[in-house]
Amino acid sequence: MTDCPSLPEGFRAAGMHAKIKQSGAFDLGLVLLEGAAPAAAIYTTNRLNGAHIALCRDHLARSGRRTRALLVNSGNANCATGAQGLADAREVTARLAEVIGCPAEHVLFLSTGVIGAPLPKARILASIPDLVDGARAEGLADFAEAVRTTDTHAKWNVLEAPGPYRVSGIAKGSGMIHPDMATMLAFLLTDGVLDDARGATLSGVAERSFHRLTIDRETSPNDMVLLWSSAARSSPVRSEDLALVSRELCRAIAADGEGATRLVTVVVEGAESEAEAARVGRAIATSPLTKTAVHGRDPNWGRILSAAASCGAAIDVDRARVWIGPAELYANGAPRPENEPAAHRHMLEEHEVVLRIDLASGGASAEVWTCDLSADYVRINADYRT
Amino acid sequence: MTDCPSLPEGFRAAGMHAKIKQSGAFDLGLVLLEGAAPAAAIYTTNRLNGAHIALCRDHLARSGRRTRALLVNSGNANCATGAQGLADAREVTARLAEVIGCPAEHVLFLSTGVIGAPLPKARILASIPDLVDGARAEGLADFAEAVRTTDTHAKWNVLEAPGPYRVSGIAKGSGMIHPDMATMLAFLLTDGVLDDARGATLSGVAERSFHRLTIDRETSPNDMVLLWSSAARSSPVRSEDLALVSRELCRAIAADGEGATRLVTVVVEGAESEAEAARVGRAIATSPLTKTAVHGRDPNWGRILSAAASCGAAIDVDRARVWIGPAELYANGAPRPENEPAAHRHMLEEHEVVLRIDLASGGASAEVWTCDLSADYVRINADYRT
Repeated sequence: MTDCPSLPEGFRAAGMHAKIKQSGAFDLGLVLLEGAAPAAAIYTTNRLNGAHIALCRDHLARSGRRTRALLVNSGNANCATGAQGLADAREVTARLAEVIGCPAEHVLFLSTGVIGAPLPKARILASIPDLVDGARAEGLADFAEAVRTTDTHAKWNVLEAPGPYRVSGIAKGSGMIHPDMATMLAFLLTDGVLDDARGATLSGVAERSFHRLTIDRETSPNDMVLLWSSAARSSPVRSEDLALVSRELCRAIAADGEGATRLVTVVVEGAESEAEAARVGRAIATSPLTKTAVHGRDPNWGRILSAAASCGAAIDVDRARVWIGPAELYANGAPRPENEPAAHRHMLEEHEVVLRIDLASGGASAEVWTCDLSADYVRINADYRT
Repeated sequence: MTDCPSLPEGFRAAGMHAKIKQSGAFDLGLVLLEGAAPAAAIYTTNRLNGAHIALCRDHLARSGRRTRALLVNSGNANCATGAQGLADAREVTARLAEVIGCPAEHVLFLSTGVIGAPLPKARILASIPDLVDGARAEGLADFAEAVRTTDTHAKWNVLEAPGPYRVSGIAKGSGMIHPDMATMLAFLLTDGVLDDARGATLSGVAERSFHRLTIDRETSPNDMVLLWSSAARSSPVRSEDLALVSRELCRAIAADGEGATRLVTVVVEGAESEAEAARVGRAIATSPLTKTAVHGRDPNWGRILSAAASCGAAIDVDRARVWIGPAELYANGAPRPENEPAAHRHMLEEHEVVLRIDLASGGASAEVWTCDLSADYVRINADYRT
């Protein structure tokens, strides 16, 4: 995360307190373009969906994937709210479209927060005119602030490609985060040209970024990643640049996981395929015993090996190797206890703990990001609604 | 759990402190028969295996599934210890076979505890004669005591079938517990006749008991369930009786989950098949957000619905219903907030919290057992080796 620079050319943004959150924090954010421009989205695989999943699918289909405005509220997920929830969301998009003067299907509206409570529609409707008036090219930080829930800080990342275009990423997420779908909410804004034919596809980017992130193995019903270009410049956006921004957002989300004290990077090598490497990485990154050991700064390599061996992927346990940071702790079927002090120091001193395993079964590798599991995670989630 | 009665006819048992655990607690247990008799086992699906998995497979194959003695140590898993670990285990079984006078393959030897430390073989070998001398028909509680690791109490369950035979179940397990294999270690002893043709198969019993238990979604590399009959009586054992004893052991393990304050029974109804019902039950029972909500006594039905909808099983979210205890909290696509106080009372007052969901997709159902997730789980596992 860097100091907040400008948005990519053509975008304006704003954030404000619309009285949804009792805390007084920002809870309504907006990103605007002067004219509709190309967007792409991927959605949660949870069969329970926030109202915005259906609404965004519908609007992007009807608009030919062109978008003029993105509105997001935090503090309420508008999820498990039935037909009323969808009607409420439609009313909000209609009102914003009216204020900025465009068809409703050029407006997207997303919600994040508590499941099962009615959307405070009146407060959002009343705030729209002020929000539109406040939109500015320097509004990235305000927007990122407005989409937070349990995040301890706003998350954005800006890549200035050498010359041709800019990519800004904004994300929110701290709990209910697990791969195999987009993470809670993430937005990739660019002024470069989206060109699917050249491989700048969102799903390809997500496969190697958002899908390799897990906080707690919980799949949110409101997950969505949106890629949106103003196309203000002529250069096609490279998927590697989108992936770079996305990976930094993932690392920021993992580091800010609920109750986390360490960013954990799981590196899997020697796998039969990249998909198997990612699968093993997820097995390690979702293992509560591995995550509590990191929290206790205990170089308990046996839990890493056990988690890797339990997920069904190919592993040769007699030739596998396990490292924590620079220290090799298991090799050739036997422990290396003499290296545990170095592993312990790595866990004590580094904010990023690296857990690495060689499966000795092939040449593929993958990285997965998570965090440690602390008593604070339990406290945050035991008391979330009270 | 009841007061400790006798073992099924023909069995004797013992437990002692063999100086494996620093605490001075029992750490070596034995069950004996006068002559070898039929046994059956199922094993962990983790690809990392404790040495005893290979040893037990080998001995049961060579003995025609007949067993004379069962030795178990706690405090050391003899896992990730390579060829030396297996050689150590074989030496222990050879010594016990020599003392009681039988072929080595009639002896089983299991280990549970810390992964990756060498087996303290000398202490076990030195303790065997005293252990054999101490075996008695009233030794069930001592044996159950000797197989504990982080369990807060020994676990056994005895079913006195009306007349024909007795079934005793003993289990250990508190963490690293997840379905799809046997739980850590469980032993079903009976004096009735095992008759696979009549359906008293261990895998069928496990499918509806041990495979429906989860503490922390961690699959232990040492898991094993052993069914063993002295065949002292002539009545065939009914699988329903074995399942009854096994389910009570599962409930005892869940209630004693690491850091647990509540036994959680997840009831899934209206599923397309029993397998799908069990799958949804496991999704709910492994959801950290659901488990922390139970810990916080928060009737957060949205997390139950979200967990159920995230596992890929058929669910009609607009017709699904969710209850906590007696209180219906979600029906016909909408919350029922008026019932939350009753749900909250159930969570506060009952030791067993019942989470129930109707998927509105069919006629099948299943129960799964777990516990809440507390800050103590984190503390126990952050500090396990220190």
